[in-house]
Amino acid sequence: MTTTTNTIKPFLDENFLLETPTAEILYHNYARDLPIIDYHNHLPPEEIAADKQFDTLTAVWLNGDHYKWRAMRTMGVPEKFITGTASDLEKFRKWAETVPFTVRNPLFHWTHLELQRYFGVRELLNPESADAIYQTCTEALQTQEFSTQNLLRKMNVELVCSTDDPVDDLRYHKQTREAGLDIKMLPAFRPDKAILIEKETFPQYISQLGEVTGIEIQRFDQLLEALQNRIGYFNEQGCFLSDHGLEQVYAQDFTNREVDIIFKKRLVGEKLEGAEARKFMSAVLYHLGLMYAEQGWVQQFHLGALRNNSRRMLQQLGPDTGFDSIGDFEQATALARFLDRLDSGGKLAKTILYNLNPRDNEVMATMIGNFNDGSARGKMQFDSA
Amino acid sequence: MTTTTNTIKPFLDENFLLETPTAEILYHNYARDLPIIDYHNHLPPEEIAADKQFDTLTAVWLNGDHYKWRAMRTMGVPEKFITGTASDLEKFRKWAETVPFTVRNPLFHWTHLELQRYFGVRELLNPESADAIYQTCTEALQTQEFSTQNLLRKMNVELVCSTDDPVDDLRYHKQTREAGLDIKMLPAFRPDKAILIEKETFPQYISQLGEVTGIEIQRFDQLLEALQNRIGYFNEQGCFLSDHGLEQVYAQDFTNREVDIIFKKRLVGEKLEGAEARKFMSAVLYHLGLMYAEQGWVQQFHLGALRNNSRRMLQQLGPDTGFDSIGDFEQATALARFLDRLDSGGKLAKTILYNLNPRDNEVMATMIGNFNDGSARGKMQFDSA
Amino acid sequence: MTTTTNTIKPFLDENFLLETPTAEILYHNYARDLPIIDYHNHLPPEEIAADKQFDTLTAVWLNGDHYKWRAMRTMGVPEKFITGTASDLEKFRKWAETVPFTVRNPLFHWTHLELQRYFGVRELLNPESADAIYQTCTEALQTQEFSTQNLLRKMNVELVCSTDDPVDDLRYHKQTREAGLDIKMLPAFRPDKAILIEKETFPQYISQLGEVTGIEIQRFDQLLEALQNRIGYFNEQGCFLSDHGLEQVYAQDFTNREVDIIFKKRLVGEKLEGAEARKFMSAVLYHLGLMYAEQGWVQQFHLGALRNNSRRMLQQLGPDTGFDSIGDFEQATALARFLDRLDSGGKLAKTILYNLNPRDNEVMATMIGNFNDGSARGKMQFDSA
Repeated sequence: MTTTTNTIKPFLDENFLLETPTAEILYHNYARDLPIIDYHNHLPPEEIAADKQFDTLTAVWLNGDHYKWRAMRTMGVPEKFITGTASDLEKFRKWAETVPFTVRNPLFHWTHLELQRYFGVRELLNPESADAIYQTCTEALQTQEFSTQNLLRKMNVELVCSTDDPVDDLRYHKQTREAGLDIKMLPAFRPDKAILIEKETFPQYISQLGEVTGIEIQRFDQLLEALQNRIGYFNEQGCFLSDHGLEQVYAQDFTNREVDIIFKKRLVGEKLEGAEARKFMSAVLYHLGLMYAEQGWVQQFHLGALRNNSRRMLQQLGPDTGFDSIGDFEQATALARFLDRLDSGGKLAKTILYNLNPRDNEVMATMIGNFNDGSARGKMQFDSA
Repeated sequence: MTTTTNTIKPFLDENFLLETPTAEILYHNYARDLPIIDYHNHLPPEEIAADKQFDTLTAVWLNGDHYKWRAMRTMGVPEKFITGTASDLEKFRKWAETVPFTVRNPLFHWTHLELQRYFGVRELLNPESADAIYQTCTEALQTQEFSTQNLLRKMNVELVCSTDDPVDDLRYHKQTREAGLDIKMLPAFRPDKAILIEKETFPQYISQLGEVTGIEIQRFDQLLEALQNRIGYFNEQGCFLSDHGLEQVYAQDFTNREVDIIFKKRLVGEKLEGAEARKFMSAVLYHLGLMYAEQGWVQQFHLGALRNNSRRMLQQLGPDTGFDSIGDFEQATALARFLDRLDSGGKLAKTILYNLNPRDNEVMATMIGNFNDGSARGKMQFDSA
Repeated sequence: MTTTTNTIKPFLDENFLLETPTAEILYHNYARDLPIIDYHNHLPPEEIAADKQFDTLTAVWLNGDHYKWRAMRTMGVPEKFITGTASDLEKFRKWAETVPFTVRNPLFHWTHLELQRYFGVRELLNPESADAIYQTCTEALQTQEFSTQNLLRKMNVELVCSTDDPVDDLRYHKQTREAGLDIKMLPAFRPDKAILIEKETFPQYISQLGEVTGIEIQRFDQLLEALQNRIGYFNEQGCFLSDHGLEQVYAQDFTNREVDIIFKKRLVGEKLEGAEARKFMSAVLYHLGLMYAEQGWVQQFHLGALRNNSRRMLQQLGPDTGFDSIGDFEQATALARFLDRLDSGGKLAKTILYNLNPRDNEVMATMIGNFNDGSARGKMQFDSA
């Protein structure tokens, strides 16, 4: 066997992921002490407002984390130990069995970084270390130091923008603001349910939106009025950005009359042709884009996920439970047309694009360059999601 | 000119392709002595059954190897020296002229690995070394040590699954089994010709399938019956997996009545619309998927090849002669729908996906995660083909 | 902070981009002294014919360079300092402010390579060094050594093929040839405007082509006659290659009668369906391919750019000003069909494919292998553009 003179850095030391001396300088001297301004996450506002504490490590770390669930399923862990009736300790042990096999998946790094940096645990998680780590961390979670707000302070978080449906009353955002919480928690406006007209639940959602706004929504212009109404309300609550989760952006030609007919057809429960749905979604996206620009908001687009691929598990567990995958949708032409429509009317809001499929990174990175200009520095941005 | 302190490893030494000490340990202490279980290859069953010996190095190494042919054509070698009337030595010399230019192509590695590990030849193949290597290897091939079966033993092969058409009688599989051959040779069921309805030869193939099964195939349900019949026969011969070579998986909506009309239209020689063909292929794939699940088989899908791109050469040499390329078909949405249809009825067989275009690796790798669960550990797998 | 034993090579030394000793040998002993034969560029023939000298570094280096413009816009530089009324020195200072932020973009390397290798400037360009560099280079440009022709000689250029519209009279090519210029300047035939039938300016362009050829173009066969006429003229002027800038190659089925109807419809100003346009473009591309093969030319295809994404800036500045991006068009199937149609009739000219989206590199690299054969060594080639 040959020998090698490479020295292997200790895993997760203070220079983790820093490959060059320059990277070390940039991180330690510049980046490390900067606060976190998190403009997209899925933290539950209620738990932050309540300064919730967690009973066990499983409660804070595995419950709801469908990335971990997916890894466990791939390892053959029965659902009982993932989303089912097993005890928190039993679930944790199954996760500990899974972790050693996640090497080369970010889950391996996330797991050990979180254990080390927030709980002071420096061991690797595996079946042997599982019980001791569970106990140490679960004990720590009983102390005030590990309440949701203190965890955010520990991470030097200055601002979190949650992800909120237009019909949400944002009571927890108000509550934390009125309580003078030092960590800013602002809403982000995510109107997917008002756009995805083919979803079974679309008509009910529209009637819910009608109730919240006091507008009886029977025409397309009333839908726009209701959305504008909620954008106004979100804006009052400090919101300054929207967010969209879409397979692709739509930018078909449409007239408001056509869209109105399609909308009414769907409200009475009819199924639409694919082309009708795309026309409708093109129209709502465009009009929302106008409203965001008027309001001075930033708009975010998460593109490319293929969701809810297992109907069996969707029925059993609902959405966002680990059954989505990367899609291979065509992105460039419609995205360019969508952005250009807004830009050519002087109504392109600052925009952040995220795309899921790494093969599209080049398209996204060059797309933003088309709409940046000196009149609005940093107008567009691309985050590889 | 600068100097460098990198030391260059000897080419093709025992640590070839092993980049780290860990890789060396994993290979030498664990992987090296494991047998080969090859569940997909194109070895000819007849040649294994007959324990064939090869006259020359050209016969075993160049004849039929269209990867080598393609490299030779790119170098401008006339077809006479590739598939034509030149002598075996002349053909070999042309390959030897080509090899030095294949650096960075796996052909370069395959060529020298095979020469070294099975023939003990440690030189690089080039015009100077060509004649001596040809003579050494051709002499070795005359000995019993280099019969097909002994070559497989030399490679520590425990099982080979060949690739077989549903109409095949599998006589060589039977013969080797009855002869008690220590290397297992099992068939794999590859029904492409019963699926690709647009091929000119489709109607003839259906009538051939009818003859083999004794079923007069005039309706879609009779086609399914005939396929089920052959699956049963293959299963009796030890087959436990199917294989499909497709540009993409199809998962259109269909009714059996629609599909029956399309099938009959094609049987009388009519040309189909693209949408009709996709509907038919969606239906056959779905029904085959059900049968595989019932039978407890594994199903394999090779996706993304764009085949027979040169009609001129297809006419001259037939298919699989070096004129295919990588396609850029959309894969994710239909593949997810296909797998979900089977899964939601509890009929998703264990599945192996291969895709040809590396840009689709991420889609494939995440696709499998949607249908793995605790109830069937390791249900799906992705091989970058 | 850890230390590292890597030694960092001086930036842009004589071994820039040469990562291994073999690379150094290949470059210094073989490649370095070879002349440049540039078969695709956008140099202005008039400026070469006139042996133009440039007033300032901005004039030669920033004017018209929309790659630099795009980087400046991304940094928030107002248009005044890019394409506007600011002085040359002011524009240059804005570029110098931008350069330090282009690290990891080829602009950073191009900028410093050009400064070093042609102006002897070895400093990095930034706001501190800007004025001195501007002065040094602007002074150098006043000397005869920096005329267009002498710059080409300095770079050891033997041949440049410019990019020319079929209606061009090629007067500057004639002029340099008749003057016996030691650098060969030949035209390349780029008939995009005769193909892209959906462009608003298509009918005017056809009438312009009619004037140049003396053919009143009212039918499709007359369009082909006019194109053949210009190919003949270009050929007389030494042209031996064509060039096409397309989103994708088109290879629909068509009859000349169908195409004739579509052509006439468009000539009278009607808008076409997408399918009609693709049929027309398929036909022109095919017939041009035949003509190129007859003429013994090489054909070039630049595929995959999504152009003129900002209508606002297109109106203000025209095309090719920095508002294009990478597209994600399907390429393989139509490209294979297009090449095969020509090949199967024995009329496939030598072909060079360029594609813009790196995700398509594998498709392009395997595509060429389908049409290379011993009868025409090196028939096809792929340049990652």
